[in-house]
Amino acid sequence: MKYIYSLNFRVRDYECDLQGIVNNANYQHYTEHTRNEFLRAHGLNFAELHDQGIDTVVARLSMQFKSPLRSGDDFVTRLALRKEGLRYVFMQDIYRLPDEKIVLKAVTDIVCLVNGRLQDCQLLNERFKDYI
Amino acid sequence: MKYIYSLNFRVRDYECDLQGIVNNANYQHYTEHTRNEFLRAHGLNFAELHDQGIDTVVARLSMQFKSPLRSGDDFVTRLALRKEGLRYVFMQDIYRLPDEKIVLKAVTDIVCLVNGRLQDCQLLNERFKDYI
Amino acid sequence: MKYIYSLNFRVRDYECDLQGIVNNANYQHYTEHTRNEFLRAHGLNFAELHDQGIDTVVARLSMQFKSPLRSGDDFVTRLALRKEGLRYVFMQDIYRLPDEKIVLKAVTDIVCLVNGRLQDCQLLNERFKDYI
Amino acid sequence: MKYIYSLNFRVRDYECDLQGIVNNANYQHYTEHTRNEFLRAHGLNFAELHDQGIDTVVARLSMQFKSPLRSGDDFVTRLALRKEGLRYVFMQDIYRLPDEKIVLKAVTDIVCLVNGRLQDCQLLNERFKDYI
Repeated sequence: MKYIYSLNFRVRDYECDLQGIVNNANYQHYTEHTRNEFLRAHGLNFAELHDQGIDTVVARLSMQFKSPLRSGDDFVTRLALRKEGLRYVFMQDIYRLPDEKIVLKAVTDIVCLVNGRLQDCQLLNERFKDYI
Repeated sequence: MKYIYSLNFRVRDYECDLQGIVNNANYQHYTEHTRNEFLRAHGLNFAELHDQGIDTVVARLSMQFKSPLRSGDDFVTRLALRKEGLRYVFMQDIYRLPDEKIVLKAVTDIVCLVNGRLQDCQLLNERFKDYI
Repeated sequence: MKYIYSLNFRVRDYECDLQGIVNNANYQHYTEHTRNEFLRAHGLNFAELHDQGIDTVVARLSMQFKSPLRSGDDFVTRLALRKEGLRYVFMQDIYRLPDEKIVLKAVTDIVCLVNGRLQDCQLLNERFKDYI
Repeated sequence: MKYIYSLNFRVRDYECDLQGIVNNANYQHYTEHTRNEFLRAHGLNFAELHDQGIDTVVARLSMQFKSPLRSGDDFVTRLALRKEGLRYVFMQDIYRLPDEKIVLKAVTDIVCLVNGRLQDCQLLNERFKDYI
Protein backbone atom coordinates (compact mmCIF):
# COMPACT_ATOMS: atom_id res chain seq x y z
CA MET A 1 0.00 0.00 0.00
CA LYS A 2 1.41 3.34 -1.07
CA TYR A 3 -0.12 6.71 -0.23
CA ILE A 4 -0.92 8.68 -3.38
CA TYR A 5 -2.55 11.78 -1.93
CA SER A 6 -2.54 13.77 1.28
CA LEU A 7 -4.40 16.76 2.70
CA ASN A 8 -3.65 18.93 5.74
CA PHE A 9 -6.27 20.06 8.25
CA ARG A 10 -6.58 21.79 11.59
CA VAL A 11 -9.22 20.68 14.11
CA ARG A 12 -11.99 23.23 14.49
CA ASP A 13 -13.32 23.63 18.03
CA TYR A 14 -16.93 22.94 17.03
CA GLU A 15 -15.79 19.47 15.94
CA CYS A 16 -14.94 18.58 19.55
CA ASP A 17 -17.61 17.22 21.85
CA LEU A 18 -18.09 17.37 25.60
CA GLN A 19 -15.29 14.83 26.12
CA GLY A 20 -12.95 17.52 24.78
CA ILE A 21 -11.93 15.41 21.78
CA VAL A 22 -13.02 15.37 18.15
CA ASN A 23 -16.40 13.66 17.87
CA ASN A 24 -16.03 10.41 15.93
CA ALA A 25 -18.43 11.35 13.15
CA ASN A 26 -16.09 14.15 12.12
CA TYR A 27 -13.45 11.63 11.07
CA GLN A 28 -15.91 10.54 8.42
CA HIS A 29 -16.15 14.17 7.33
CA TYR A 30 -12.36 14.42 7.14
CA THR A 31 -12.03 11.26 5.05
CA GLU A 32 -14.94 12.24 2.79
CA HIS A 33 -13.50 15.70 2.18
CA THR A 34 -10.11 14.15 1.41
CA ARG A 35 -11.61 11.78 -1.18
CA ASN A 36 -13.53 14.63 -2.81
CA GLU A 37 -10.40 16.79 -2.99
CA PHE A 38 -8.58 13.78 -4.45
CA LEU A 39 -11.33 13.58 -7.11
CA ARG A 40 -10.93 17.30 -7.77
CA ALA A 41 -7.18 16.86 -8.21
CA HIS A 42 -8.06 14.42 -10.99
CA GLY A 43 -10.47 16.77 -12.73
CA LEU A 44 -13.58 15.29 -11.16
CA ASN A 45 -16.14 17.09 -9.02
CA PHE A 46 -18.53 15.40 -6.61
CA ALA A 47 -21.32 17.94 -7.22
CA GLU A 48 -20.91 18.01 -11.02
CA LEU A 49 -20.81 14.21 -11.11
CA HIS A 50 -24.14 14.22 -9.23
CA ASP A 51 -25.61 16.66 -11.76
CA GLN A 52 -24.46 14.30 -14.55
CA GLY A 53 -26.28 11.38 -12.91
CA ILE A 54 -23.14 9.81 -11.43
CA ASP A 55 -23.24 9.39 -7.67
CA THR A 56 -20.25 8.01 -5.82
CA VAL A 57 -21.63 6.44 -2.65
CA VAL A 58 -20.08 4.70 0.33
CA ALA A 59 -20.93 0.99 0.34
CA ARG A 60 -19.04 0.15 3.52
CA LEU A 61 -16.44 1.58 5.80
CA SER A 62 -14.39 0.50 8.77
CA MET A 63 -12.49 2.71 11.17
CA GLN A 64 -9.98 2.03 13.92
CA PHE A 65 -9.60 4.93 16.32
CA LYS A 66 -6.00 4.88 17.56
CA SER A 67 -5.70 8.16 19.47
CA PRO A 68 -7.94 11.22 19.66
CA LEU A 69 -7.46 14.63 18.09
CA ARG A 70 -8.04 17.69 20.29
CA SER A 71 -8.80 21.37 19.89
CA GLY A 72 -6.32 23.08 17.61
CA ASP A 73 -4.44 19.94 16.56
CA ASP A 74 -2.96 19.92 13.08
CA PHE A 75 -3.19 16.68 11.17
CA VAL A 76 -2.77 15.13 7.75
CA THR A 77 -4.99 12.59 6.02
CA ARG A 78 -3.24 10.21 3.60
CA LEU A 79 -4.91 8.07 0.99
CA ALA A 80 -4.16 4.91 -0.99
CA LEU A 81 -6.47 3.34 -3.57
CA ARG A 82 -7.12 -0.06 -5.12
CA LYS A 83 -10.05 -1.59 -6.99
CA GLU A 84 -11.88 -4.80 -6.10
CA GLY A 85 -14.68 -5.69 -8.51
CA LEU A 86 -16.92 -2.64 -8.75
CA ARG A 87 -15.57 -1.19 -5.52
CA TYR A 88 -12.97 1.57 -5.24
CA VAL A 89 -11.27 0.81 -1.94
CA PHE A 90 -9.77 3.89 -0.26
CA MET A 91 -7.35 3.27 2.57
CA GLN A 92 -7.30 6.50 4.52
CA ASP A 93 -5.11 7.10 7.51
CA ILE A 94 -4.87 10.18 9.70
CA TYR A 95 -1.69 11.31 11.46
CA ARG A 96 -1.36 14.11 13.99
CA LEU A 97 1.21 16.77 13.14
CA PRO A 98 4.00 17.39 13.71
CA ASP A 99 4.62 14.20 15.70
CA GLU A 100 3.06 11.82 13.12
CA LYS A 101 1.18 9.95 15.83
CA ILE A 102 -1.37 7.66 14.19
CA VAL A 103 -4.96 8.82 14.86
CA LEU A 104 -7.18 6.77 12.57
CA LYS A 105 -6.95 3.87 10.17
CA ALA A 106 -9.95 3.73 7.85
CA VAL A 107 -11.03 1.77 4.81
CA THR A 108 -13.89 3.12 2.70
CA ASP A 109 -15.46 1.21 -0.20
CA ILE A 110 -17.01 3.47 -2.80
CA VAL A 111 -19.28 2.37 -5.64
CA CYS A 112 -20.82 4.28 -8.52
CA LEU A 113 -24.50 4.69 -9.18
CA VAL A 114 -25.14 5.83 -12.72
CA ASN A 115 -28.68 7.15 -12.98
CA GLY A 116 -29.41 5.31 -9.77
CA ARG A 117 -28.07 1.92 -10.92
CA LEU A 118 -24.92 0.29 -9.60
CA GLN A 119 -22.40 -0.08 -12.41
CA ASP A 120 -18.77 0.25 -13.34
CA CYS A 121 -17.83 3.87 -14.01
CA GLN A 122 -15.53 4.28 -17.04
CA LEU A 123 -14.89 7.91 -16.15
CA LEU A 124 -13.46 7.06 -12.74
CA ASN A 125 -11.58 4.04 -14.13
CA GLU A 126 -9.89 6.27 -16.68
CA ARG A 127 -8.93 9.01 -14.21
CA PHE A 128 -7.66 6.51 -11.64
CA LYS A 129 -5.91 4.23 -14.16
CA ASP A 130 -2.48 4.83 -12.63
CA TYR A 131 -3.63 3.44 -9.28
CA ILE A 132 -6.14 0.65 -9.88
CA MET B 1 -47.41 37.44 18.54
CA LYS B 2 -49.08 34.09 18.98
CA TYR B 3 -47.32 30.75 18.67
CA ILE B 4 -48.96 28.57 16.00
CA TYR B 5 -46.71 25.52 16.01
CA SER B 6 -44.39 23.71 18.40
CA LEU B 7 -42.01 20.76 18.24
CA ASN B 8 -40.33 18.79 21.03
CA PHE B 9 -36.67 17.72 20.99
CA ARG B 10 -34.03 16.19 23.22
CA VAL B 11 -30.43 17.38 23.07
CA ARG B 12 -28.16 14.78 21.51
CA ASP B 13 -24.71 14.54 23.08
CA TYR B 14 -22.88 15.09 19.76
CA GLU B 15 -24.53 18.52 19.63
CA CYS B 16 -22.58 19.63 22.70
CA ASP B 17 -19.10 21.05 22.35
CA LEU B 18 -16.09 21.09 24.65
CA GLN B 19 -17.77 23.71 26.87
CA GLY B 20 -20.31 20.99 27.74
CA ILE B 21 -23.19 22.98 26.24
CA VAL B 22 -25.00 22.80 22.91
CA ASN B 23 -22.86 24.42 20.20
CA ASN B 24 -24.57 27.57 18.94
CA ALA B 25 -24.83 26.42 15.33
CA ASN B 26 -27.16 23.62 16.43
CA TYR B 27 -29.80 26.15 17.40
CA GLN B 28 -30.00 27.01 13.72
CA HIS B 29 -30.51 23.32 13.01
CA TYR B 30 -33.31 23.16 15.59
CA THR B 31 -35.10 26.20 14.18
CA GLU B 32 -34.64 25.03 10.56
CA HIS B 33 -35.99 21.58 11.36
CA THR B 34 -38.97 23.16 13.14
CA ARG B 35 -39.78 25.34 10.12
CA ASN B 36 -39.53 22.37 7.79
CA GLU B 37 -41.83 20.27 9.99
CA PHE B 38 -44.21 23.23 10.08
CA LEU B 39 -44.15 23.23 6.26
CA ARG B 40 -44.81 19.49 6.29
CA ALA B 41 -47.79 19.99 8.63
CA HIS B 42 -49.19 22.25 5.91
CA GLY B 43 -48.68 19.75 3.11
CA LEU B 44 -45.40 21.23 1.91
CA ASN B 45 -42.05 19.51 1.71
CA PHE B 46 -38.68 21.27 1.61
CA ALA B 47 -37.12 18.62 -0.66
CA GLU B 48 -40.09 18.35 -3.04
CA LEU B 49 -40.31 22.14 -3.25
CA HIS B 50 -36.64 22.14 -4.28
CA ASP B 51 -37.34 19.54 -6.97
CA GLN B 52 -40.18 21.76 -8.25
CA GLY B 53 -37.80 24.73 -8.54
CA ILE B 54 -39.00 26.46 -5.37
CA ASP B 55 -36.26 27.09 -2.82
CA THR B 56 -37.09 28.63 0.52
CA VAL B 57 -33.92 30.35 1.69
CA VAL B 58 -32.93 32.29 4.78
CA ALA B 59 -32.41 35.99 3.99
CA ARG B 60 -31.50 37.04 7.51
CA LEU B 61 -31.68 35.80 11.04
CA SER B 62 -31.05 37.09 14.53
CA MET B 63 -30.62 35.07 17.68
CA GLN B 64 -30.46 35.96 21.34
CA PHE B 65 -28.95 33.22 23.47
CA LYS B 66 -30.59 33.40 26.89
CA SER B 67 -29.38 30.24 28.63
CA PRO B 68 -27.60 27.15 27.34
CA LEU B 69 -28.98 23.67 26.77
CA ARG B 70 -26.94 20.73 28.07
CA SER B 71 -26.60 17.00 27.45
CA GLY B 72 -29.93 15.22 27.71
CA ASP B 73 -32.06 18.36 28.14
CA ASP B 74 -35.58 18.21 26.74
CA PHE B 75 -36.85 21.34 25.05
CA VAL B 76 -39.61 22.71 22.86
CA THR B 77 -39.34 25.11 19.93
CA ARG B 78 -42.33 27.38 19.35
CA LEU B 79 -43.06 29.33 16.19
CA ALA B 80 -45.06 32.39 15.16
CA LEU B 81 -45.30 33.77 11.63
CA ARG B 82 -46.02 37.05 9.90
CA LYS B 83 -45.33 38.39 6.41
CA GLU B 84 -43.46 41.61 5.56
CA GLY B 85 -43.23 42.28 1.84
CA LEU B 86 -41.74 39.19 0.25
CA ARG B 87 -40.36 37.94 3.56
CA TYR B 88 -41.94 35.28 5.74
CA VAL B 89 -40.82 36.27 9.23
CA PHE B 90 -40.62 33.33 11.64
CA MET B 91 -40.32 34.16 15.31
CA GLN B 92 -38.90 31.05 16.89
CA ASP B 93 -38.32 30.64 20.59
CA ILE B 94 -36.85 27.70 22.47
CA TYR B 95 -37.83 26.75 26.02
CA ARG B 96 -36.20 24.11 28.18
CA LEU B 97 -38.55 21.48 29.56
CA PRO B 98 -40.10 20.94 31.97
CA ASP B 99 -39.20 24.27 33.65
CA GLU B 100 -39.98 26.47 30.59
CA LYS B 101 -36.77 28.43 31.06
CA ILE B 102 -36.18 30.57 27.98
CA VAL B 103 -33.17 29.36 25.96
CA LEU B 104 -33.27 31.22 22.66
CA LYS B 105 -35.20 33.99 20.97
CA ALA B 106 -34.75 33.92 17.20
CA VAL B 107 -36.19 35.68 14.19
CA THR B 108 -35.65 34.16 10.76
CA ASP B 109 -36.64 35.87 7.50
CA ILE B 110 -37.35 33.43 4.70
CA VAL B 111 -37.78 34.32 1.03
CA CYS B 112 -38.69 32.21 -1.98
CA LEU B 113 -36.55 31.67 -5.04
CA VAL B 114 -38.61 30.32 -7.93
CA ASN B 115 -36.26 28.90 -10.53
CA GLY B 116 -33.52 30.92 -8.91
CA ARG B 117 -35.35 34.25 -8.95
CA LEU B 118 -36.66 36.03 -5.88
CA GLN B 119 -40.43 36.30 -6.08
CA ASP B 120 -43.64 35.99 -4.12
CA CYS B 121 -44.70 32.38 -3.75
CA GLN B 122 -48.45 31.84 -4.22
CA LEU B 123 -48.18 28.27 -2.94
CA LEU B 124 -46.80 29.38 0.43
CA ASN B 125 -49.17 32.33 0.62
CA GLU B 126 -52.12 30.01 0.15
CA ARG B 127 -50.98 27.44 2.72
CA PHE B 128 -50.11 30.11 5.30
CA LYS B 129 -53.17 32.30 4.63
CA ASP B 130 -54.49 31.85 8.18
CA TYR B 131 -51.32 33.42 9.62
CA ILE B 132 -50.06 36.11 7.25
CA MET C 1 -28.15 -11.78 18.28
CA LYS C 2 -31.25 -10.29 19.86
CA TYR C 3 -32.15 -6.61 19.80
CA ILE C 4 -32.52 -5.23 23.32
CA TYR C 5 -33.22 -1.56 22.62
CA SER C 6 -34.67 0.59 19.86
CA LEU C 7 -35.13 4.30 19.19
CA ASN C 8 -37.25 6.10 16.59
CA PHE C 9 -36.04 9.07 14.54
CA ARG C 10 -37.07 11.24 11.63
CA VAL C 11 -34.50 12.48 9.12
CA ARG C 12 -33.90 16.22 9.46
CA ASP C 13 -33.34 18.03 6.16
CA TYR C 14 -30.00 19.51 7.25
CA GLU C 15 -28.71 15.94 7.55
CA CYS C 16 -29.07 15.45 3.78
CA ASP C 17 -26.30 16.50 1.43
CA LEU C 18 -26.26 17.65 -2.16
CA GLN C 19 -26.97 14.10 -3.37
CA GLY C 20 -30.37 14.47 -1.66
CA ILE C 21 -29.67 11.63 0.77
CA VAL C 22 -28.53 11.54 4.38
CA ASN C 23 -24.79 12.24 4.55
CA ASN C 24 -22.97 9.14 5.78
CA ALA C 25 -21.46 10.78 8.85
CA ASN C 26 -24.95 11.28 10.25
CA TYR C 27 -25.41 7.53 10.61
CA GLN C 28 -22.62 7.69 13.15
CA HIS C 29 -24.58 10.40 14.94
CA TYR C 30 -27.72 8.24 14.93
CA THR C 31 -25.90 5.20 16.33
CA GLU C 32 -24.05 7.29 18.94
CA HIS C 33 -27.25 8.95 20.11
CA THR C 34 -28.93 5.53 20.33
CA ARG C 35 -26.12 4.13 22.48
CA ASN C 36 -26.25 7.16 24.77
CA GLU C 37 -30.02 6.87 25.17
CA PHE C 38 -29.51 3.15 25.90
CA LEU C 39 -27.04 4.17 28.62
CA ARG C 40 -29.57 6.64 29.99
CA ALA C 41 -32.26 3.92 30.07
CA HIS C 42 -29.87 2.04 32.37
CA GLY C 43 -29.29 4.96 34.69
CA LEU C 44 -26.04 6.06 33.07
CA ASN C 45 -25.27 9.42 31.52
CA PHE C 46 -22.52 10.05 28.98
CA ALA C 47 -21.84 13.59 30.28
CA GLU C 48 -21.94 12.64 33.97
CA LEU C 49 -19.67 9.65 33.31
CA HIS C 50 -17.20 12.06 31.68
CA ASP C 51 -17.35 14.33 34.75
CA GLN C 52 -16.62 11.26 36.94
CA GLY C 53 -13.53 10.46 34.87
CA ILE C 54 -15.13 7.62 32.90
CA ASP C 55 -15.06 8.10 29.14
CA THR C 56 -16.70 5.59 26.88
CA VAL C 57 -14.87 5.85 23.56
CA VAL C 58 -15.23 4.16 20.20
CA ALA C 59 -12.29 1.83 19.51
CA ARG C 60 -13.48 0.66 16.12
CA LEU C 61 -16.57 0.61 13.98
CA SER C 62 -17.74 -0.88 10.73
CA MET C 63 -20.74 0.13 8.69
CA GLN C 64 -22.49 -1.39 5.70
CA PHE C 65 -24.71 1.10 3.89
CA LYS C 66 -27.61 -0.90 2.43
CA SER C 67 -29.99 1.81 1.19
CA PRO C 68 -30.12 5.55 1.75
CA LEU C 69 -32.47 7.56 3.92
CA ARG C 70 -34.03 10.69 2.43
CA SER C 71 -35.65 13.92 3.58
CA GLY C 72 -38.48 13.25 5.99
CA ASP C 73 -37.98 9.48 6.26
CA ASP C 74 -38.90 7.90 9.57
CA PHE C 75 -36.62 5.15 10.81
CA VAL C 76 -35.76 3.04 13.82
CA THR C 77 -32.34 2.10 15.16
CA ARG C 78 -32.11 -1.27 16.94
CA LEU C 79 -29.30 -2.39 19.19
CA ALA C 80 -27.83 -5.66 20.45
CA LEU C 81 -24.87 -5.98 22.83
CA ARG C 82 -22.18 -8.49 23.71
CA LYS C 83 -18.82 -8.23 25.43
CA GLU C 84 -15.46 -9.40 24.05
CA GLY C 85 -12.56 -8.84 26.43
CA LEU C 86 -12.62 -5.19 27.39
CA ARG C 87 -14.79 -4.24 24.43
CA TYR C 88 -18.54 -3.67 24.54
CA VAL C 89 -19.65 -4.66 21.05
CA PHE C 90 -22.81 -2.88 19.92
CA MET C 91 -24.54 -4.29 16.85
CA GLN C 92 -26.69 -1.44 15.58
CA ASP C 93 -29.01 -1.73 12.62
CA ILE C 94 -31.21 0.91 11.08
CA TYR C 95 -34.52 0.19 9.37
CA ARG C 96 -36.66 2.64 7.42
CA LEU C 97 -40.27 2.92 8.60
CA PRO C 98 -42.88 1.81 7.98
CA ASP C 99 -41.57 -0.63 5.35
CA GLU C 100 -38.71 -2.01 7.52
CA LYS C 101 -36.26 -1.75 4.62
CA ILE C 102 -32.74 -2.26 5.94
CA VAL C 103 -30.67 0.95 5.77
CA LEU C 104 -27.51 0.27 7.75
CA LYS C 105 -25.74 -2.55 9.52
CA ALA C 106 -23.14 -1.29 11.96
CA VAL C 107 -20.89 -2.74 14.63
CA THR C 108 -19.32 -0.38 17.15
CA ASP C 109 -16.72 -1.45 19.71
CA ILE C 110 -16.68 0.71 22.82
CA VAL C 111 -14.04 0.69 25.52
CA CYS C 112 -13.78 2.53 28.81
CA LEU C 113 -11.10 4.97 29.80
CA VAL C 114 -11.03 5.53 33.53
CA ASN C 115 -9.04 8.66 34.29
CA GLY C 116 -7.57 8.33 30.83
CA ARG C 117 -6.47 4.68 31.20
CA LEU C 118 -8.05 1.76 29.36
CA GLN C 119 -9.60 -0.60 31.85
CA ASP C 120 -12.63 -2.77 32.60
CA CYS C 121 -15.51 -0.69 33.92
CA GLN C 122 -17.39 -2.35 36.79
CA LEU C 123 -20.17 0.22 36.59
CA LEU C 124 -21.00 -0.67 32.99
CA ASN C 125 -20.56 -4.38 33.63
CA GLU C 126 -23.07 -4.22 36.46
CA ARG C 127 -25.66 -2.21 34.52
CA PHE C 128 -25.32 -4.40 31.42
CA LYS C 129 -25.12 -7.72 33.31
CA ASP C 130 -28.31 -9.05 31.70
CA TYR C 131 -26.77 -8.77 28.24
CA ILE C 132 -23.05 -9.46 28.45
CA MET D 1 -14.90 49.53 10.72
CA LYS D 2 -11.56 48.06 9.72
CA TYR D 3 -10.88 44.38 9.26
CA ILE D 4 -8.10 43.19 11.55
CA TYR D 5 -8.01 39.47 10.78
CA SER D 6 -8.90 37.14 7.92
CA LEU D 7 -8.96 33.40 7.34
CA ASN D 8 -9.27 31.41 4.10
CA PHE D 9 -11.51 28.36 3.68
CA ARG D 10 -12.78 25.99 1.02
CA VAL D 11 -16.34 24.69 1.16
CA ARG D 12 -16.46 20.98 2.02
CA ASP D 13 -19.15 19.00 0.21
CA TYR D 14 -20.69 17.67 3.42
CA GLU D 15 -21.47 21.28 4.35
CA CYS D 16 -23.91 21.55 1.42
CA ASP D 17 -27.50 20.44 1.82
CA LEU D 18 -30.05 19.09 -0.63
CA GLN D 19 -30.48 22.55 -2.18
CA GLY D 20 -26.87 22.19 -3.38
CA ILE D 21 -25.70 25.18 -1.32
CA VAL D 22 -23.95 25.50 2.02
CA ASN D 23 -26.43 24.89 4.84
CA ASN D 24 -26.92 28.10 6.82
CA ALA D 25 -25.77 26.67 10.13
CA ASN D 26 -22.30 26.16 8.66
CA TYR D 27 -21.81 29.91 8.37
CA GLN D 28 -21.96 29.96 12.14
CA HIS D 29 -19.26 27.30 12.16
CA TYR D 30 -17.11 29.40 9.81
CA THR D 31 -17.47 32.53 11.91
CA GLU D 32 -16.88 30.64 15.19
CA HIS D 33 -13.74 28.98 13.82
CA THR D 34 -12.50 32.36 12.61
CA ARG D 35 -12.97 33.94 16.03
CA ASN D 36 -11.19 31.05 17.72
CA GLU D 37 -8.27 31.27 15.30
CA PHE D 38 -8.19 35.01 15.96
CA LEU D 39 -7.97 34.22 19.69
CA ARG D 40 -5.16 31.77 18.99
CA ALA D 41 -3.29 34.43 17.00
CA HIS D 42 -3.37 36.50 20.20
CA GLY D 43 -2.07 33.71 22.41
CA LEU D 44 -5.47 32.60 23.64
CA ASN D 45 -7.04 29.19 23.27
CA PHE D 46 -10.78 28.48 23.47
CA ALA D 47 -10.26 25.05 25.06
CA GLU D 48 -7.58 26.18 27.53
CA LEU D 49 -9.71 29.18 28.50
CA HIS D 50 -12.55 26.75 29.26
CA ASP D 51 -10.21 24.64 31.41
CA GLN D 52 -9.25 27.84 33.31
CA GLY D 53 -12.91 28.60 34.02
CA ILE D 54 -13.24 31.28 31.34
CA ASP D 55 -15.95 30.59 28.77
CA THR D 56 -16.47 32.95 25.88
CA VAL D 57 -20.09 32.55 24.85
CA VAL D 58 -22.26 34.06 22.16
CA ALA D 59 -24.87 36.40 23.62
CA ARG D 60 -26.46 37.34 20.33
CA LEU D 61 -25.80 37.21 16.63
CA SER D 62 -27.33 38.49 13.44
CA MET D 63 -26.65 37.30 9.93
CA GLN D 64 -27.55 38.60 6.51
CA PHE D 65 -27.21 35.99 3.79
CA LYS D 66 -26.26 37.82 0.60
CA SER D 67 -25.41 34.99 -1.81
CA PRO D 68 -24.84 31.28 -1.28
CA LEU D 69 -21.60 29.35 -1.32
CA ARG D 70 -21.49 26.11 -3.30
CA SER D 71 -19.46 22.92 -3.46
CA GLY D 72 -15.76 23.64 -3.84
CA ASP D 73 -16.00 27.42 -3.49
CA ASP D 74 -13.05 29.18 -1.92
CA PHE D 75 -13.84 32.03 0.44
CA VAL D 76 -12.36 34.33 3.04
CA THR D 77 -13.82 35.43 6.36
CA ARG D 78 -12.82 38.89 7.59
CA LEU D 79 -13.22 40.20 11.10
CA ALA D 80 -13.45 43.57 12.85
CA LEU D 81 -13.85 44.08 16.59
CA ARG D 82 -15.17 46.69 18.97
CA LYS D 83 -16.32 46.62 22.59
CA GLU D 84 -19.69 47.78 23.94
CA GLY D 85 -20.04 47.42 27.70
CA LEU D 86 -19.20 43.83 28.54
CA ARG D 87 -19.76 42.69 24.98
CA TYR D 88 -17.03 42.03 22.42
CA VAL D 89 -18.76 42.78 19.11
CA PHE D 90 -17.28 40.89 16.18
CA MET D 91 -18.28 42.06 12.72
CA GLN D 92 -17.60 39.12 10.47
CA ASP D 93 -18.07 39.18 6.73
CA ILE D 94 -17.55 36.40 4.22
CA TYR D 95 -16.44 36.96 0.63
CA ARG D 96 -16.27 34.36 -2.12
CA LEU D 97 -12.90 34.06 -3.83
CA PRO D 98 -11.51 35.07 -6.19
CA ASP D 99 -14.35 37.39 -7.24
CA GLU D 100 -14.86 38.96 -3.75
CA LYS D 101 -18.65 38.59 -4.04
CA ILE D 102 -20.19 39.25 -0.64
CA VAL D 103 -21.70 36.09 0.89
CA LEU D 104 -22.53 36.95 4.49
CA LYS D 105 -22.58 39.91 6.82
CA ALA D 106 -22.66 38.85 10.45
CA VAL D 107 -22.39 40.48 13.84
CA THR D 108 -21.65 38.31 16.86
CA ASP D 109 -21.69 39.58 20.44
CA ILE D 110 -19.45 37.59 22.76
CA VAL D 111 -19.41 37.81 26.55
CA CYS D 112 -17.21 36.16 29.13
CA LEU D 113 -18.36 33.85 31.86
CA VAL D 114 -15.74 33.50 34.56
CA ASN D 115 -16.54 30.46 36.68
CA GLY D 116 -20.05 30.63 35.28
CA ARG D 117 -20.63 34.32 36.12
CA LEU D 118 -20.88 37.09 33.55
CA GLN D 119 -18.07 39.56 34.05
CA ASP D 120 -15.47 41.68 32.31
CA CYS D 121 -12.46 39.64 31.32
CA GLN D 122 -9.13 41.42 31.90
CA LEU D 123 -7.26 38.76 29.94
CA LEU D 124 -9.25 39.41 26.77
CA ASN D 125 -9.19 43.18 27.33
CA GLU D 126 -5.42 43.10 27.55
CA ARG D 127 -4.91 40.93 24.46
CA PHE D 128 -7.40 42.96 22.40
CA LYS D 129 -6.26 46.37 23.69
CA ASP D 130 -5.21 47.54 20.22
CA TYR D 131 -8.73 47.12 18.89
CA ILE D 132 -11.22 47.92 21.65
